[in-house]
Amino acid sequence: MSGEVATQAYPVERLHEFCRRVFEHFGVPFAEASEAADVLAAADLRGIDSHGVGRLHTYHDMLALGRINPRPRVSIVRETPSTATVDGDNGLGLVVGPQANRIAMDKAERAGSGWVSVRNTNHYGIAAYYPLRALERDLIGWAMTNSTKLVAPLWGGERMLGTNPIAIAFPGLEEPPVVVDLATSAAAYGKIEMAKRRGEEIPHGWAIDREGRDTTDPMGMMDGGALAPLGSFREMGGHKGYALAAMVDILCCVLSGANWGPFAPPFALRQEIPKRSVGKGIGHFFGAMRIDGFIEPDEFKRQMDDWIRTFRATKPQPGTPGVMIPGDPERLAEEQRSKNGIPLLPAVVEELRDVSHLTGIPFA
Amino acid sequence: MSGEVATQAYPVERLHEFCRRVFEHFGVPFAEASEAADVLAAADLRGIDSHGVGRLHTYHDMLALGRINPRPRVSIVRETPSTATVDGDNGLGLVVGPQANRIAMDKAERAGSGWVSVRNTNHYGIAAYYPLRALERDLIGWAMTNSTKLVAPLWGGERMLGTNPIAIAFPGLEEPPVVVDLATSAAAYGKIEMAKRRGEEIPHGWAIDREGRDTTDPMGMMDGGALAPLGSFREMGGHKGYALAAMVDILCCVLSGANWGPFAPPFALRQEIPKRSVGKGIGHFFGAMRIDGFIEPDEFKRQMDDWIRTFRATKPQPGTPGVMIPGDPERLAEEQRSKNGIPLLPAVVEELRDVSHLTGIPFA
Repeated sequence: MSGEVATQAYPVERLHEFCRRVFEHFGVPFAEASEAADVLAAADLRGIDSHGVGRLHTYHDMLALGRINPRPRVSIVRETPSTATVDGDNGLGLVVGPQANRIAMDKAERAGSGWVSVRNTNHYGIAAYYPLRALERDLIGWAMTNSTKLVAPLWGGERMLGTNPIAIAFPGLEEPPVVVDLATSAAAYGKIEMAKRRGEEIPHGWAIDREGRDTTDPMGMMDGGALAPLGSFREMGGHKGYALAAMVDILCCVLSGANWGPFAPPFALRQEIPKRSVGKGIGHFFGAMRIDGFIEPDEFKRQMDDWIRTFRATKPQPGTPGVMIPGDPERLAEEQRSKNGIPLLPAVVEELRDVSHLTGIPFA
Repeated sequence: MSGEVATQAYPVERLHEFCRRVFEHFGVPFAEASEAADVLAAADLRGIDSHGVGRLHTYHDMLALGRINPRPRVSIVRETPSTATVDGDNGLGLVVGPQANRIAMDKAERAGSGWVSVRNTNHYGIAAYYPLRALERDLIGWAMTNSTKLVAPLWGGERMLGTNPIAIAFPGLEEPPVVVDLATSAAAYGKIEMAKRRGEEIPHGWAIDREGRDTTDPMGMMDGGALAPLGSFREMGGHKGYALAAMVDILCCVLSGANWGPFAPPFALRQEIPKRSVGKGIGHFFGAMRIDGFIEPDEFKRQMDDWIRTFRATKPQPGTPGVMIPGDPERLAEEQRSKNGIPLLPAVVEELRDVSHLTGIPFA
């Protein structure tokens, strides 16, 4: 977006400190506020602008209204050596997520793998944050979450599922890791908003309108329509994107006792409250596996290097940049933004200034 | 296909017995031959014609040429309480798969979950077979496998990945289970073959030709081209289908020490032998999780019933049959085919008669 609107770059440390202090302002303890700020900063660094400080005002609002518990007691409600259900006590997902992820990683270190389904939690930031933590402990990490309804199942005419992402990461030895992080919708909501702002049409297959018809008008989707699942249409595999979103929904919510499908509570104040509640909060699902529970870690990483180099060397499709490795775009963004700062749109800066005004925490 | 070509229906028991005897003919022990026939029969019953007896001739050929070990010693080469790497001793995937899946399920019963990566194996039939076995033990089962290269990564101009399916199943209480089983390609190879037979074009986004260009000519794909990943194009999420196929490839092969990516050995004799070997055979990945490792199983299943009914009641998209539950089409096929038999195309019957001729096992 930096090409179209004037942006200003902010050092990530400064944004991190501001976020941490805003969370602390509402009673979130220092260590947890700092970790929550880590998750937001990871999104901004990796170029996932929709999940970084651009969301701080929403977190602020939910905390200010007491909709989110600033000091949750995250607890294990049931467990086996390699599984657990965790109750997030209605904390910030940015606080509950890292703790539940650690429970999965701790179990993996003891039992070979750890799998944690989480209920009574809230939006947890970018999914990739969690498997990246697992890499630091030589584990293969997975993360999924449900979210407020936005996506129609194939052949459905209304919002029933969140964009329900799946993330997993695998380390290389000399090569950077393969980092998969994908929403199970055809396109991101942010792309619809951007098309609207630019007065452009959206491609067939991204969205349906409130009547359930394929639409190329961004407002058609935004005004009571829905995003399409990955694959978009039956003939292009839309049933597969729907099935993946369903899988994420069930692992995160039905397994933990959270609100699944259309009953996920809203992330932001302007969103409608679901008709009924079928559980507590939203849900996440974390997994961690010891690499040495399967193979010598060095042998695995050497093969990953070979895998990465082999795929990079794929004959390119004419007219494209050629094959990338999952995680490449985000890593390149991180390299750049670590040096040059995080470019923020004027609208986002305005929001941060408003948070500053409301909390008394300075943001220049 | 039954609408276009005369088909004859065969009782599944008869096909099962024929397959079992063919496997036994090559020295596969009775119990393993019977289980291998179970896997093929499951595909035929569930309407996945490409993975049932229609493949028997290929298995026959590989056994006849000694390319597959009829009496594998399936062994655990490394393990923790909840993980293992299994070596399939170059057995039939239809024999190795069920055994490795049982190792995952046994581990789940002891440690809460079990995760098994398998190397030195061969094609294992339909992925859904394995999580369906897990349901019988009140487990949530997962299955993935790599396969011979057919799919291009996004922006790639050549075959680098198999159709790498992901399967998982969740039980209901009164409702039938949710059974996810999806290839990570946009379309199945069988659909390209069918379009060719009918002299029809294929939709944009299914395939590329040998130059790497999007093609609507089935022969363009079949003659050195490739299938597109789920999502097809960058703008429609083709990078997501590629990332999912990569995830399956790494979990099944790099983790176990099997041949990943373009180096997967050929399934059929006519396919080219890869340029190099980076491991042993192809790879699978199985998972199993105890439901009661997370939540009371009855509570889970009641919520699943509610989930299934809620999604079935989604407002339908105009001009469609409305929302189905993953696994519905296969279950309906199974209900019908259990009663009416398996409809086989004349070409498939011819192949079975040829196997009968070659082995001396009667097939009327």
